[in-house]
Amino acid sequence: MKIIIVGAAGHVGSTAVTALSGRHEVIRVGRSSGDVHMDIEDIDSIRAMYKQVGKIDAVVSAVGQVHFGPVDEMSSEQFMTGINQKVLPQVNLVLEGFDYVNDGGSFTVTSGVTNRDPIRGGSCTAAANGALDGFVVGAAVDMPRSIRINAVSPEVLESCREAYDGFFPGHVHVSNEAVGLAFSRAVEGCMSGQIIIVE
Amino acid sequence: MKIIIVGAAGHVGSTAVTALSGRHEVIRVGRSSGDVHMDIEDIDSIRAMYKQVGKIDAVVSAVGQVHFGPVDEMSSEQFMTGINQKVLPQVNLVLEGFDYVNDGGSFTVTSGVTNRDPIRGGSCTAAANGALDGFVVGAAVDMPRSIRINAVSPEVLESCREAYDGFFPGHVHVSNEAVGLAFSRAVEGCMSGQIIIVE
Repeated sequence: MKIIIVGAAGHVGSTAVTALSGRHEVIRVGRSSGDVHMDIEDIDSIRAMYKQVGKIDAVVSAVGQVHFGPVDEMSSEQFMTGINQKVLPQVNLVLEGFDYVNDGGSFTVTSGVTNRDPIRGGSCTAAANGALDGFVVGAAVDMPRSIRINAVSPEVLESCREAYDGFFPGHVHVSNEAVGLAFSRAVEGCMSGQIIIVE
Repeated sequence: MKIIIVGAAGHVGSTAVTALSGRHEVIRVGRSSGDVHMDIEDIDSIRAMYKQVGKIDAVVSAVGQVHFGPVDEMSSEQFMTGINQKVLPQVNLVLEGFDYVNDGGSFTVTSGVTNRDPIRGGSCTAAANGALDGFVVGAAVDMPRSIRINAVSPEVLESCREAYDGFFPGHVHVSNEAVGLAFSRAVEGCMSGQIIIVE
């Protein structure tokens, strides 16, 4: 398979690279690293990336920034960062990808744990993850040409333990391998419309 | 209790009006009907509404427009209608309401069935409902002064049966009374961070 992995250099995306490299042709996409450069928040940049890469069998997305902070101190603009920087970029990657994904191919987006196991200051990320999970459930029944779509929703990665220390009290840390296997199931498996929880 | 009901004249909002009127002071808010007029998509209009009404014990929101259509024909702008016309208005009603809701009060938003039981052409609405459900889960743990927040997520209302005929094949129709009871549980009950499913 020819597989695009967006956010390939990130903590989550690199698990997909490791899990899928070797037996597939993996194209690593990043803002300033990887095989192809793309600004995920710029729809024209997404279109240029697809045009450059051409036909593919799978698109994996592991990107997104959100606002963290108490809900009663959050502005409307801060709330929208989760939509504009995590939800819309991954949705656009799907909407713009239909002309490039082969029959029976797949899209995989990345959401996260916060809409099922909330953390303090996490209402923006919970909304963003909920939107992505909902989109996947809704979009799966519409997919043309047997294209599949799923979300990988991981707990905190072992590799992010230090970075997130204190923000996810009591949450388990999942291995990079476990997260990579979830992307493998999404890309190489047969499911669609599923939220693949890794915890 | 003094309760604001936004979208009071709509199919969903009117169930809340019926369920909560009589034993509470209900203030019906609508774009062009009700006791107070407000444009839910204009944050300044939300602020003016709160300023006019003053302190309240509960805010109920039952508003929102979304795009319906196949995901492979949907534009980025069409996807965003669900965010801008259903998610953000209800989130803004919460974010702007903290100075007006009394200790131990509540917010109740309205999502819907499509992110758990998808329909064709429903990826925009599923994402919007998922965002609202996620926001409620995430925001509940942050709420100050024992304020609660919940979402009512109803199946198709009996009163909408004709309007939605053909779009929700096999979905049950729930009574106006059942939906009104969900709003009663959210406003008069003790739960928080819950998606109150009516089906």
